[in-house]
Amino acid sequence: MESVDLKKLAKLLNLSPSTISKALRDSYDISKETKARVIALANELNYQPNPHASSLRRHRSKIIAVVIPEIANNFFTLAVNGIESIAQEKGYHVLIYITHEAVEKEVAFTKLLHNGRVDGLLISLSSTTKDINHLEELQKTGLPIVFFDRVCEQLNTACITTDDYESSYKATQHLIDNGCTKIAHLMFSESTSIGNKRLKGYVNAVQDNGLPLDEKMIVHCTNNDEQDYKLLEDLLKSKKPDGVFASVERYAILCYDVCNRLNLSIPNDIKIIGFSNLPAAALFNPPLSTIKQPAFEIGKEAASILFQALDKKMFKLKQENIVFKSTLIERNSTSNSIIKKAANNKKVS
Amino acid sequence: MESVDLKKLAKLLNLSPSTISKALRDSYDISKETKARVIALANELNYQPNPHASSLRRHRSKIIAVVIPEIANNFFTLAVNGIESIAQEKGYHVLIYITHEAVEKEVAFTKLLHNGRVDGLLISLSSTTKDINHLEELQKTGLPIVFFDRVCEQLNTACITTDDYESSYKATQHLIDNGCTKIAHLMFSESTSIGNKRLKGYVNAVQDNGLPLDEKMIVHCTNNDEQDYKLLEDLLKSKKPDGVFASVERYAILCYDVCNRLNLSIPNDIKIIGFSNLPAAALFNPPLSTIKQPAFEIGKEAASILFQALDKKMFKLKQENIVFKSTLIERNSTSNSIIKKAANNKKVS
Repeated sequence: MESVDLKKLAKLLNLSPSTISKALRDSYDISKETKARVIALANELNYQPNPHASSLRRHRSKIIAVVIPEIANNFFTLAVNGIESIAQEKGYHVLIYITHEAVEKEVAFTKLLHNGRVDGLLISLSSTTKDINHLEELQKTGLPIVFFDRVCEQLNTACITTDDYESSYKATQHLIDNGCTKIAHLMFSESTSIGNKRLKGYVNAVQDNGLPLDEKMIVHCTNNDEQDYKLLEDLLKSKKPDGVFASVERYAILCYDVCNRLNLSIPNDIKIIGFSNLPAAALFNPPLSTIKQPAFEIGKEAASILFQALDKKMFKLKQENIVFKSTLIERNSTSNSIIKKAANNKKVS
Repeated sequence: MESVDLKKLAKLLNLSPSTISKALRDSYDISKETKARVIALANELNYQPNPHASSLRRHRSKIIAVVIPEIANNFFTLAVNGIESIAQEKGYHVLIYITHEAVEKEVAFTKLLHNGRVDGLLISLSSTTKDINHLEELQKTGLPIVFFDRVCEQLNTACITTDDYESSYKATQHLIDNGCTKIAHLMFSESTSIGNKRLKGYVNAVQDNGLPLDEKMIVHCTNNDEQDYKLLEDLLKSKKPDGVFASVERYAILCYDVCNRLNLSIPNDIKIIGFSNLPAAALFNPPLSTIKQPAFEIGKEAASILFQALDKKMFKLKQENIVFKSTLIERNSTSNSIIKKAANNKKVS
């Protein structure tokens, strides 16, 4: 029996082979009617796609794309360096695209990748991404996609993250262990996978310790320093927290600024801990306690998985969640030494 | 008279029009022999290139490329944000490529751009770039190129920089004014335009103030934190400088680490000033005096010039040097208040 290939379908339907290919991959730029005609004939003639065709089509640009929500963030810069360490070994170029937390930019950029500009995509989602149709479409073109940090488990692929829930719980527990009873949580977006997990870690730690949960202590910061400064100033004045857990690096820095402005002493009046990969956190006055994520390793792992797929020409990755452990680094911003000292002094007197 | 175009030349020489086009643009992937044949015939028939042809060929990807030497550096992340602010207005995507200071990566990536992947290039050179043949080749393809920060005036195009010489002179003078007489200069690479100017600013300030110039006080740091830590430790132990001017952000941070290790008090034992756009420099213990570059504005200006060229379809930019002023921000790391206080105390006693 004569084999049925794309060219044959194209000829019979009086369409181009690329239109047939796109229609079979359910591409967005082919009309519903055309897709229906193509699929009907393909089924009728028992068309079997050539498993090597898409392999051959891909794997040729020697470029991978990395999509990140922001650049002025030490987690992402370190993760990118981890990715590049692997790409370099493999002789690949890495192109970085920043969405600035805008889903429109994420969607528009992923559309550009439909034409084979790159061989693979590593992506950390923007905070405004609500659905992942654009990534499902892209995956259908045979482009391997790996998530890191901000992931979406709806897409069947590999997700590399850190233990956001556990780290967040641990950070909150650390503040409680050091004497805090009124702890504020500075968060970015509940709609990201990590924002959500970090919030839950905080909430559960507060509740497990029998402390009251005050919704006004959960501050949704923005992406704008001025607005966030105002939000933090209001919080510190009105709610007078004795502990702050900043789930984003930038918010911990802003919190120091606001404390300086309000003449609040860290850690005596207020203790601060933040998620941060800032190399200079230890030089702060006082040194900042942090949850340090293995950012470089996360990037490295994400890239390794992508290149394994490219090497094996398996362009649809299997679903897996790889979770790296973060570390709590205790520094003076959460120290209770002065409370201890005061207690000792009282005993003496 | 019949006009002579690419197609005509191609037909007469039995070559493809794209080969003719590349040969006339002196492209690297056409042999010398073919180039000679093409040029000979073009001259013979008085071929005049269509001035609009390359304009039409370009200006279609709606992508610009930004090439930077490193990503974990607040100057570059801010400059990229400045570039993106303009690209966003123009409906352009920005792709970022990091050379990690390797000229091989810079050359390989610019070769990828020969095929019209992007409409323009903004580049800050790697420290190992010795000549700019790769950029001259790229410019010949009609791709507009703009330099920022680390520039090379050999290429006829726009260069956006900051006043590196003056800022460096000012930083050194500031240390001298505050009592330093033995000032070390931590520099990266003399072969970059900025490394060279910053060194000259330091040298001239030292000499203009009648201080001895000690070559051992000029430390060539690397890109490796461990090696640099060792270099700085050796410097501080052997040469005992009373002032340090770090011409790269990372070196100032390392210098704080080494001072902490050696129990040197900043600013009492040693004063430190650095080039830095680190938002947290004011939170250091003590707050770090910095030369703050208008990084966002530099990126914005570089992008504006590129888009003006794209709008006007003038793909060969005119040579111009645009210099932005940096600001010296005085903080406690260079303060001489304690010296003053000591002097006052002596007077009182």
